[in-house]
Amino acid sequence: MERPDKNCQSPSRRQMMIGTAGVIAAGTALTQLEGLFNSAQAKGGPTEKWPWPYEKLDPAKTAEICYNEWYRVFCGCAVINSIFSQLREKIGEPYTSFPVDAFVFLEGGQVGWGTICGSPAGANIVANLIIGPRIAGSPVGHQISADIMQWYSEADMPVFTPAKPRLKKKLVKTVSDSPLCHISVGKWMKASGYPLKSAERKDRCARVAASTAYRLVELLNDWKDGKYEETSDFSAPSEFGITGQYNCDECHTEVPTPPMPKS
Amino acid sequence: MERPDKNCQSPSRRQMMIGTAGVIAAGTALTQLEGLFNSAQAKGGPTEKWPWPYEKLDPAKTAEICYNEWYRVFCGCAVINSIFSQLREKIGEPYTSFPVDAFVFLEGGQVGWGTICGSPAGANIVANLIIGPRIAGSPVGHQISADIMQWYSEADMPVFTPAKPRLKKKLVKTVSDSPLCHISVGKWMKASGYPLKSAERKDRCARVAASTAYRLVELLNDWKDGKYEETSDFSAPSEFGITGQYNCDECHTEVPTPPMPKS
Repeated sequence: MERPDKNCQSPSRRQMMIGTAGVIAAGTALTQLEGLFNSAQAKGGPTEKWPWPYEKLDPAKTAEICYNEWYRVFCGCAVINSIFSQLREKIGEPYTSFPVDAFVFLEGGQVGWGTICGSPAGANIVANLIIGPRIAGSPVGHQISADIMQWYSEADMPVFTPAKPRLKKKLVKTVSDSPLCHISVGKWMKASGYPLKSAERKDRCARVAASTAYRLVELLNDWKDGKYEETSDFSAPSEFGITGQYNCDECHTEVPTPPMPKS
Repeated sequence: MERPDKNCQSPSRRQMMIGTAGVIAAGTALTQLEGLFNSAQAKGGPTEKWPWPYEKLDPAKTAEICYNEWYRVFCGCAVINSIFSQLREKIGEPYTSFPVDAFVFLEGGQVGWGTICGSPAGANIVANLIIGPRIAGSPVGHQISADIMQWYSEADMPVFTPAKPRLKKKLVKTVSDSPLCHISVGKWMKASGYPLKSAERKDRCARVAASTAYRLVELLNDWKDGKYEETSDFSAPSEFGITGQYNCDECHTEVPTPPMPKS
């Protein structure tokens, strides 16, 4: 679907409806509170110095690893491990000690609850583990996360076709307009006619994870080269005064207006 | 709202509509594929042995730490660090080397996109890091994640009131019926009248994170004592043939039927 023009309040995605710079400005204000916090609890551990070392990877090779990993650890964990398994080999720590397999639970939008698809969730974890949180000095991990979720929502999925698919058939492609598993998988099942536990749905999700790993590596490589530019142009907090996605009228019959600041 | 009876297909939450045991049975079938995977990539790092050491914590003390941590690192990271900061002191590794602060991005349902609230997302991470993924031998990390998301959805939030709230006022309580930030924060803003960037909304979220950390520690302590019993009685994959939450008719005017397996 097209980005909302009539049902949501923003005629232009770039228009700042609320007049603040959203989450990043809020972060600046909030760092003033850090000094109030117990410094013993704020002291970072040895891996809490960023950025972590990173060597550029090949997106297609990463996608192939991810596609196969899906069948062992499913979407989120496959995205994480497709990148971290290579960085363990090339670099070692802190990747070697990061417990990637703990993240199997990202499957099905977090143990089947259909919230954020594991693929973008795993990508967000990787980007922030490598680049660090916005409170440590760089906004890029946060920005790549927004890029990934918007790209995931807008892409005709799955983008990537593996060299040796386990299921040797063409799969229907769908646009989810949302990073939520329920919506992403739901729209695909509707278009394809295949149920949740089918080999087709599973292979679709494996290819979607691979597509996401491919895209993430492109962004990380750009960041490594000093060429990264934010592609996301949507912020629900800034544009609508609430956290959210852009497909408002897919869930709302009438899109509500959140309370606005008195200005 | 009451759990769905008329708009969703399941008259009883316990009724198995599809006739399979959902994600956990799928996991059993899928472990048969593990042997097909490249063992070099499946080899675990030093922290990928579970369970991690755990000592029982005090839920109220954890909630207080979490409430204050919210103002430094926001919902998801606050839940993680409220528990891990204590385990770093009591036990040390592998908590010391886990990069907690990387998880600031969980804020606002993942950088403001309103997907899963950072509080249950952080709780899911903690439970699975400590107990391990279902593929490593225990289903409890997965089960606690389902427990937390269902509890979060059904609870009158915020449950916990800190001993020294930064905002010395009573806050309206709301039931979200969903683990999504957009819905949880949206319903609270509607009931309270306070906008997203208000001190009231922030303190509400800090108290919600604290409430979640409290509940998580209760569950982890039960697990440590060998007394853990799953409380979640909802599974959208099993009941409806799609990943999801239980508040179907809040988004769907007419709840669609996913493709079903031919049986």
